[in-house]
Amino acid sequence: MPARPSEDDLIARFFAPLAGPAGLGLNDDVALLTPPAGRELVLTTDALVAGVHFFADDPPEAIARKALRVNISDLAAKGAEPIGFLIDLALPGDWTAPWLEAFAAGLGEDAALYRCPLIGGDTVKTPGPLTLAITALGAVEKGRMAARSGVRPGDRLYVSGTIGDAALGLRLRLGQGPSLDEASRRHLVDRYLLPRPRLALAPAMAAYANGGMDVSDGFVGDLRKMLRVSGVAARVELARLPLSSAAAAAIAADPALFEIAATGGDDYELLAAVAPGKSAAFEAAAAAAGVAVTLVGEAFAGAGPARFIGRDGREAALPHGAFSHF
Amino acid sequence: MPARPSEDDLIARFFAPLAGPAGLGLNDDVALLTPPAGRELVLTTDALVAGVHFFADDPPEAIARKALRVNISDLAAKGAEPIGFLIDLALPGDWTAPWLEAFAAGLGEDAALYRCPLIGGDTVKTPGPLTLAITALGAVEKGRMAARSGVRPGDRLYVSGTIGDAALGLRLRLGQGPSLDEASRRHLVDRYLLPRPRLALAPAMAAYANGGMDVSDGFVGDLRKMLRVSGVAARVELARLPLSSAAAAAIAADPALFEIAATGGDDYELLAAVAPGKSAAFEAAAAAAGVAVTLVGEAFAGAGPARFIGRDGREAALPHGAFSHF
Repeated sequence: MPARPSEDDLIARFFAPLAGPAGLGLNDDVALLTPPAGRELVLTTDALVAGVHFFADDPPEAIARKALRVNISDLAAKGAEPIGFLIDLALPGDWTAPWLEAFAAGLGEDAALYRCPLIGGDTVKTPGPLTLAITALGAVEKGRMAARSGVRPGDRLYVSGTIGDAALGLRLRLGQGPSLDEASRRHLVDRYLLPRPRLALAPAMAAYANGGMDVSDGFVGDLRKMLRVSGVAARVELARLPLSSAAAAAIAADPALFEIAATGGDDYELLAAVAPGKSAAFEAAAAAAGVAVTLVGEAFAGAGPARFIGRDGREAALPHGAFSHF
Repeated sequence: MPARPSEDDLIARFFAPLAGPAGLGLNDDVALLTPPAGRELVLTTDALVAGVHFFADDPPEAIARKALRVNISDLAAKGAEPIGFLIDLALPGDWTAPWLEAFAAGLGEDAALYRCPLIGGDTVKTPGPLTLAITALGAVEKGRMAARSGVRPGDRLYVSGTIGDAALGLRLRLGQGPSLDEASRRHLVDRYLLPRPRLALAPAMAAYANGGMDVSDGFVGDLRKMLRVSGVAARVELARLPLSSAAAAAIAADPALFEIAATGGDDYELLAAVAPGKSAAFEAAAAAAGVAVTLVGEAFAGAGPARFIGRDGREAALPHGAFSHF
């Protein structure tokens, strides 16, 4: 059996090829970066643990891509353009070169796709499950970040894409979903496996949104969180919640799944709060970027909490306020 | 039994009080930072796993401080001044509020000590051991970072503080050391438990060092690494290796421990390569900063490897080139 490579060999073989110029070839302990002039830096970090945030037997390239994409999603929600990322990787003793090769390939593909090069990291061993943390760095025009606390009374509340696919996909993967046609099933399971961060919407977020946040812990809970931090109330129409045809089919087969869709996690869609005077421009910019956005409600002055109006026109009781990975 | 706090409650209670302005009260998913004008950013990250990088039953404040300090040490080696840090914390299910309180207290103390405020993070649960990753951000004058690849032929090679204390302390902790007086024993064990990053030396590194690196994986292995990346050879006198009186006493009791001191990990001292014309100024700046630096060798043109001359005046055979946490 060939000897296990050292940490340096492993970095040189699998990760150095992904490094951007700021990564110094991963030959140093640090990344060195000239910050973009006149812009602000946005930093975000997310940790993922096998068996908690993904399945240990998920394809390694999908694990890598999910880890990067959940961070890209945070940058997108803030209106920021990616600069680069660092990765901390705690590997169990039974890792193999083919596994790591596939992991690095997935990471490299997405680093290229989102123009977010690897600039640093650390690799350690763990007696526990595979654990990753990615810290991503982005840049936004001064004063233009869409903060979670930025929602103002009167703002229109939008959500991108479709909601609930990933949560329904997770249930299907766990064998708990309704029976669905194969294409719908595959769509939902794939949305759980691989987030689609709405980076194309970032310029519209920076230009037009007062407040922004990505939906990672469930639409209802995350929207409540954004409104609470902003100190505003809101009325949200759950009938407007954008559903994919696959999610709609699942909910038609079992109406109780609507609550899962509205409160489940892993959507990685964006919430945007946009002043009425800018909503037409925001919608036009989103359309030009090829990202669907749906008006779901309106913020108003008041202490809250947000009122969620159910599909029956009555205020919805939503016991599970937020999905939590914690 | 009281309910476990949610992730948000936990962040608000333990971590938000530590947040600097860029951390937005830890109420957002991101940190927002105006980069320091005319300076370059230095980013570094280190992951630590219970049972690998520290003992699970180490005092929680010491675990937190070690995690931050190993990153501060990287910034110091590059001549960078800390700006802030993000922490990813994967907590086993049996964490307790007193444990986390002590952890946060240790983190806060060191954040204040090194003027490196918390600006973001993520908290997740893990079925495995406690795992942490810290990503620290610093600033250095443009073009002045002491790169690992910056050593030039003719440079004088310095090391800060004393070498080997932590590696000997680890052996003592594992019950493998020689018998020592209590003060020496405590000194060595404490050096393993808690690194002393040489941040006071950072301005001298930026002003005078061509190359710099912190010693985390052993003096011999890390110096070899820096020389290899720089493409230079060197002659290093192991007789000059600065030893604490406690380490000297341990080695006097068991001379075989010298190799442990020279090659073992966790020193978190700095290596500096300084051009001869600047060495007097470097030494004066180090003295003014209150950090001992010792001349241990000289770099010269050539492919290497570095030659380490033993205390007997003959070239030393050092089978364990580098300690590895991997």
